Amino acid sequence: MDLTFSATPPLRFPLQDLKLFAAEVFLRDGVPQVDAVQAAEVLCTADEWGIRSHGLARLRAYHDSLVAGRVNPVAKPRITRDSPSVIVLDADNGLGLVTAPVANRMAMERAHATGAAWVSVFNSNHFGIAGYYAVQGLDQDLVGMAMTNTPPLVAPLWGARRTLGTNPIAFAFPADKEPPVVVDMSTSAISLGAVEVASRVDSDLPAGCAANNFGQPTLAPSDFFAGGMLLPLGGARESGGHKGYCLAALVDLLCGPLAGAAWGPFIAPFPIGRDKPPEPADGKGIGHLFGAYSISAFSDPRTFRQTVDEWVRTMRTTPPQPGSDGPIIPGDPERFAAEQNRRRGVDLEPKVIMDLNHLGIQLDIQFHRF
Amino acid sequence: MDLTFSATPPLRFPLQDLKLFAAEVFLRDGVPQVDAVQAAEVLCTADEWGIRSHGLARLRAYHDSLVAGRVNPVAKPRITRDSPSVIVLDADNGLGLVTAPVANRMAMERAHATGAAWVSVFNSNHFGIAGYYAVQGLDQDLVGMAMTNTPPLVAPLWGARRTLGTNPIAFAFPADKEPPVVVDMSTSAISLGAVEVASRVDSDLPAGCAANNFGQPTLAPSDFFAGGMLLPLGGARESGGHKGYCLAALVDLLCGPLAGAAWGPFIAPFPIGRDKPPEPADGKGIGHLFGAYSISAFSDPRTFRQTVDEWVRTMRTTPPQPGSDGPIIPGDPERFAAEQNRRRGVDLEPKVIMDLNHLGIQLDIQFHRF
Repeated sequence: MDLTFSATPPLRFPLQDLKLFAAEVFLRDGVPQVDAVQAAEVLCTADEWGIRSHGLARLRAYHDSLVAGRVNPVAKPRITRDSPSVIVLDADNGLGLVTAPVANRMAMERAHATGAAWVSVFNSNHFGIAGYYAVQGLDQDLVGMAMTNTPPLVAPLWGARRTLGTNPIAFAFPADKEPPVVVDMSTSAISLGAVEVASRVDSDLPAGCAANNFGQPTLAPSDFFAGGMLLPLGGARESGGHKGYCLAALVDLLCGPLAGAAWGPFIAPFPIGRDKPPEPADGKGIGHLFGAYSISAFSDPRTFRQTVDEWVRTMRTTPPQPGSDGPIIPGDPERFAAEQNRRRGVDLEPKVIMDLNHLGIQLDIQFHRF
Repeated sequence: MDLTFSATPPLRFPLQDLKLFAAEVFLRDGVPQVDAVQAAEVLCTADEWGIRSHGLARLRAYHDSLVAGRVNPVAKPRITRDSPSVIVLDADNGLGLVTAPVANRMAMERAHATGAAWVSVFNSNHFGIAGYYAVQGLDQDLVGMAMTNTPPLVAPLWGARRTLGTNPIAFAFPADKEPPVVVDMSTSAISLGAVEVASRVDSDLPAGCAANNFGQPTLAPSDFFAGGMLLPLGGARESGGHKGYCLAALVDLLCGPLAGAAWGPFIAPFPIGRDKPPEPADGKGIGHLFGAYSISAFSDPRTFRQTVDEWVRTMRTTPPQPGSDGPIIPGDPERFAAEQNRRRGVDLEPKVIMDLNHLGIQLDIQFHRF
């Protein structure tokens, strides 16, 4: 397979081939086969959904973390607390991509038994996209929930330091004939990926989304990379920045202190080398929280799914704001991207292709296999 | 007691007197005594916390709803579903101020038994401030959660109609020596109360917070009242408006379709007479969801509380953004207001005092009693 990246139109790769490649990389890094396949599955789902910042663009970083011994490839997750509706897992400093699916399945199983259940994970690492977990219960009449805290990039309202993560939240609600409603959002105004894109194309950031290293609002992506910070969803106080701060706080408190994981500014950076590790190093990893609500514990699942159908149609038929095509449904962009990417293959950015190319050469993985 | 409202400085009323007055109004409206006292307690907690839009300013509206027979004063809430961690309550079209505390206590009790528990309520009405419920478990080593859907005021992203409520979320986390972290926030960019205040003082709204009746962003409060709408938290798409829409959606789906309550544009307006009831009238009331996590199911409660202390101190000592006094903690404004209001009495707006005055005359409640 030709991995040169100067060609236009963009190069597209079959999703399955990319998964095989990623699994092979994890395998070479010492991750057992079943886990390597699982990790590749989660990672490549980000590319499938068009969330390219969280997919193969990060494979090199995961690889580096494993090679540097910062992440345990043969982690054995261990239950540390167990009550009817709550389980706590020590992830043994393994890949979040491996432990998180296990934790999420536990939450789903328990939810069927008790009505709703929660599994929190500490001593873990990045778990990919939160939405991957939330959607797993869609065909089991579950409402799925996932959240995680992440390394500090975001200032609290009125603060001038990176103190909180972009701390995503995901929820998925099954419909009947309509597609499911899938929320997957970070709690900062914009993502790190949005800053990177603006920087590459040399455009301004939207107002109220980032600040320079003094905490002064800025439109320049370069200010962010020179020690600046993202702002919470809502931006300034008068437009609701305190609410974004509250959301980031609640994800951090649920995933960090409640789970027994690191929190706020004490979460180690990702990937290695972008920043120094926080002092004192915390050693409890990042934390996740998975939840599932069994719909039948609340109402008739068929009625519920039909009502979600009506909800979806009601939002779609809301008169459009002038200059727009009208409302879409949470999950639409990712589903449209996934349909296209499964059909036509995933188009990767040249830099990512180069990264994968180098990784393949380094690990002696034959590219023609994928 | 002199209730004329031209005096300066603002008139202040002892909190306990206001509670007695509100309870007396509910009692005269046919609400049983225990329930009337409970309803007054929730309602006046809003005034105590300085959230004046949700306190006695609404007593007239609750009264009107009861008198008009739209709300059942002698409702008998009934459990319709019961599994170990989930209970569903039919509120029998009673006051949310009465049923919600019952539902919240059930969630708290079950959480101690199973680790985490959820109680959803349908066929209910407005429950006051969400934060009231979330804080009830603070001295029981619980993390409390409350949310409700509300009448439509907010457009979905790219929409030009009031389709979703301001749909608040509340969470409360106990600390040890520091005050608790209490999140209580609507999921719109600004509240209806903020528009009312801007209108009274004839000032502009912040950018990205409201639209006129065509869905075009506006700074004029009058545009909102002339059929306009609030915008979701985050404002436009590029500054995160899709995230505010997602948050409003998830609260609506959890409290409406999942609980079996009305949802989105089909929720009846509050108070009576502000708008026409939606067609078709739905008849399932609004929905609430209460949750409680038992901290001991996740980690050692003392360690958790001490970690929250550290979290609070870390946020407070984040360097301040230039021109600000630095970060505060979710719950600070309400706690400061409450300390002041308990000490000095609650200062009510002249219009509210006039309303209460008229209500007292109408119901023959002797003002000197409070």
